[in-house]
Amino acid sequence: MSEYRVDTVCIIGTGLIGGSLALAIRQAGFCREIVGAGRTEETLIKALELGVIDRYDTSIANAAQHADIVVVCVPLGSIYSVFEQINAAEIENTVITDAGSAKQSVINDAEFVFGDEFQNFVPGHPIAGTERSGVSAAFPELYQNRRVILTPTENTSSDALEKVRAMWQSAGAEVETMSAQHHDRVLAGTSHLPHLLAFGLVDCLNNLEDVDEIFRFAAGGFRDFTRIASSDPVMWRDICLSNRDEVMVMMRRYSVEMEKMYKALEAGDGEELREIFERAKKARDAFCG
Amino acid sequence: MSEYRVDTVCIIGTGLIGGSLALAIRQAGFCREIVGAGRTEETLIKALELGVIDRYDTSIANAAQHADIVVVCVPLGSIYSVFEQINAAEIENTVITDAGSAKQSVINDAEFVFGDEFQNFVPGHPIAGTERSGVSAAFPELYQNRRVILTPTENTSSDALEKVRAMWQSAGAEVETMSAQHHDRVLAGTSHLPHLLAFGLVDCLNNLEDVDEIFRFAAGGFRDFTRIASSDPVMWRDICLSNRDEVMVMMRRYSVEMEKMYKALEAGDGEELREIFERAKKARDAFCG
Repeated sequence: MSEYRVDTVCIIGTGLIGGSLALAIRQAGFCREIVGAGRTEETLIKALELGVIDRYDTSIANAAQHADIVVVCVPLGSIYSVFEQINAAEIENTVITDAGSAKQSVINDAEFVFGDEFQNFVPGHPIAGTERSGVSAAFPELYQNRRVILTPTENTSSDALEKVRAMWQSAGAEVETMSAQHHDRVLAGTSHLPHLLAFGLVDCLNNLEDVDEIFRFAAGGFRDFTRIASSDPVMWRDICLSNRDEVMVMMRRYSVEMEKMYKALEAGDGEELREIFERAKKARDAFCG
Repeated sequence: MSEYRVDTVCIIGTGLIGGSLALAIRQAGFCREIVGAGRTEETLIKALELGVIDRYDTSIANAAQHADIVVVCVPLGSIYSVFEQINAAEIENTVITDAGSAKQSVINDAEFVFGDEFQNFVPGHPIAGTERSGVSAAFPELYQNRRVILTPTENTSSDALEKVRAMWQSAGAEVETMSAQHHDRVLAGTSHLPHLLAFGLVDCLNNLEDVDEIFRFAAGGFRDFTRIASSDPVMWRDICLSNRDEVMVMMRRYSVEMEKMYKALEAGDGEELREIFERAKKARDAFCG
């Protein structure tokens, strides 16, 4: 089967992220067969019916057995347990990768389960997603021109890295590599902290009197600002806990910024406020075009 | 001219807000003539060329003279000076209203300039806008099905109130009345605080090392979340200062919320985080559908 890059890809967790990857690599002819596994057989049956996977196994060990690549697309809080189940399979020649939003914690889990000599683990994180979730929300274009960050460790073999890179590239993504620490810091700033801020704002307003009134007069800006507060609470709990140290660093930095703005407001220092707003607008306009 | 509700409307400040109002009430046949005034003659010439106004006067007093309604659509920081210039005209039978995002400060300005016996001032705030600004961004549908809040004082006559209400309704808006204090509190929560948070987040990230890197990996959620950080810095400085007390109250409440989340994170209390996120998601889903 020389037209395929690999024979079998096993996707554990066939929701939006795993399901979209399956659809994309199938469309690209990256592998001969896609095997699904996961906690809920109902989801797997649906994935099969939708043509997302070719077959499934409710045993993660069975599904992962002899696969060329196993992609773990489950919530961060379940990754450790999934690694343990994968480890029960014969995975000598299997490359294992994941799609978790925090990387150091997943690396720790992998090293604990597979041992720190294991060369075939490639930590990964596709920067993509929608507010929708589940296999019926999956679509093959999700990763088109989106970035996927791989954070290989000292142990990760270049063969394993290249296999995972090729998989994501076949799905249309731009693949970049960086250290797990750098990834976790960058994502704490651009994703994890903003989610906390948005959840926090809505919860804060929700505790006021006249709550309905408050939300009734919210305009488009508020809708955009709080969109991420409609994200999955359990997923975001896991992400915040998994990347706790970096998120706490960012929260402390952010408090300092808020304190600065509060003091400027208290002092009626319009010049200071304008400078902050202007720097922010300039930076935001520069990166969002 | 019985087909018109009023004869002359004078719009001071023919940018996005004033220009769109002019286009909308002209389309609705609300008045016979629209007179423009403002600081920059170039803008007024453009407004004339675009058919937004019928004529203009660079003297605010001359433009406001004998108008049925004068609508002040200038930044909050300029309202006081505009009121003073209007006060130099004959305005015995003229209703004056504004479009400022904070209401108590504008009421204070109006009472100081026109006296606290003046019955023809109707404080107003259309909850509408786009990130674009200027007369060329104006369009007649801006207020369609958007809310306009009027905050009449004890002195405001019901005739004046009804005239301004009819004007906004002819522009397609839903008009509601409430106290200035209530308006300022609601808007501090749903608009002013979110703007500060977004400006603050971008400025905070902008101070990190590897800034380009940070923004390069920002996903769609970040783009939405920070959209309002591309708003006009001077306008937002004015809004924050004008509604300083209520904004400070909201900032303090928000710090308490952030502190709660920080402590939960520090303690590894996933249950507390999940509860906050879940309450927020539920509230957000309920009001944004």
